[in-house]
Amino acid sequence: MNQVKSKVGRTIFARLDENEDLLTSIKERAEKNEIRAGFFFLIGTVKEAVLGFYKDANYKPIQLSEPLEIICCSGNVSVREDGELVVHAHMAVGDGEGHMFGGHVLPGCIVGVTGELTLVETPDAKLKRAFKNKLNLYLWSLDD
Amino acid sequence: MNQVKSKVGRTIFARLDENEDLLTSIKERAEKNEIRAGFFFLIGTVKEAVLGFYKDANYKPIQLSEPLEIICCSGNVSVREDGELVVHAHMAVGDGEGHMFGGHVLPGCIVGVTGELTLVETPDAKLKRAFKNKLNLYLWSLDD
Amino acid sequence: MNQVKSKVGRTIFARLDENEDLLTSIKERAEKNEIRAGFFFLIGTVKEAVLGFYKDANYKPIQLSEPLEIICCSGNVSVREDGELVVHAHMAVGDGEGHMFGGHVLPGCIVGVTGELTLVETPDAKLKRAFKNKLNLYLWSLDD
Repeated sequence: MNQVKSKVGRTIFARLDENEDLLTSIKERAEKNEIRAGFFFLIGTVKEAVLGFYKDANYKPIQLSEPLEIICCSGNVSVREDGELVVHAHMAVGDGEGHMFGGHVLPGCIVGVTGELTLVETPDAKLKRAFKNKLNLYLWSLDD
Repeated sequence: MNQVKSKVGRTIFARLDENEDLLTSIKERAEKNEIRAGFFFLIGTVKEAVLGFYKDANYKPIQLSEPLEIICCSGNVSVREDGELVVHAHMAVGDGEGHMFGGHVLPGCIVGVTGELTLVETPDAKLKRAFKNKLNLYLWSLDD
Repeated sequence: MNQVKSKVGRTIFARLDENEDLLTSIKERAEKNEIRAGFFFLIGTVKEAVLGFYKDANYKPIQLSEPLEIICCSGNVSVREDGELVVHAHMAVGDGEGHMFGGHVLPGCIVGVTGELTLVETPDAKLKRAFKNKLNLYLWSLDD
């Protein structure tokens, strides 16, 4: 069925501070709390952002070089077949006119005044990713 | 108070695959896991999308005929008064320039390379919908 | 570590009705259910919206005076140092063409036909906010 199940564990609320890289910080918070599977949400602001659009087996980067509200950032924490923890997040941001831009969160999204992370642990979920050569992506590989 | 309460049950993580219809697949996952009430989030990509805008008691369809990132898709699972399971979802998608489009998820949103569904069960919630003639909508009808 | 943890408590599903102010209604629902810490999601529609963009220590309001789908609204419930309950929400809305606008939810977002709120309680989280003079903002002040 390509799925896994878990009870819900702890919720971690963490404040991200100015100049932290969004992806790195979420990963560090997961690691410090020993979370290997879970889902999260975040609101706040960024000073700049790099969002990806998947095309031809790669993420084309979209550079946004201005302060933006994080309207919505959500995703999940899982583990690659080589043991590496993966934070997969998508994000929508908005500018001073309310215009929005969105994509896959790449390195280079830099927190502005604050980031408010809500991370929910699902301790029993074996949320694994396996590499798919043709796609050049790690997709969920789920047993149940 | 127009509300219901529940403890939180299992979280289901499910992979949706290329060419699945988003709405149909979420509903099937809920049914196979015997979930009659819950909430969910999904990120991934679509090959095309049909989003609705509610106006004059109908959903006006917005057709998007290109590959798009699913920036944010969230909603809930509930039950109509005739027993039919309902998946109510709203979705934001982004194109290769990061430009976004959003609306109510209608049939015809077709998964691209992958969809990562996080579905949280709330087993005690009597999350019912009753038909409102004037609106031509099933609204939540909650007892507590 | 600037974080707090909690087990997950009840989930409240609440229907918001036409003409309710979004921010006020979410706060009332939290108060009536004695929720001092938690996170939430909401989909539905608004008749008009006021979204904020943080700049120069203030929220510049973006006025949207038309019916819009609520594509994504999420945030958290916490408590200021003076005991006041705070609902912090960001929202993305979409118009009849699917075009989107987003920002920090300010007073004046008026529910259209319905709002479907999912509010998850985290009863052990001491989710506090302290005022930062320079920013003119209450930021999370977390002990753990």
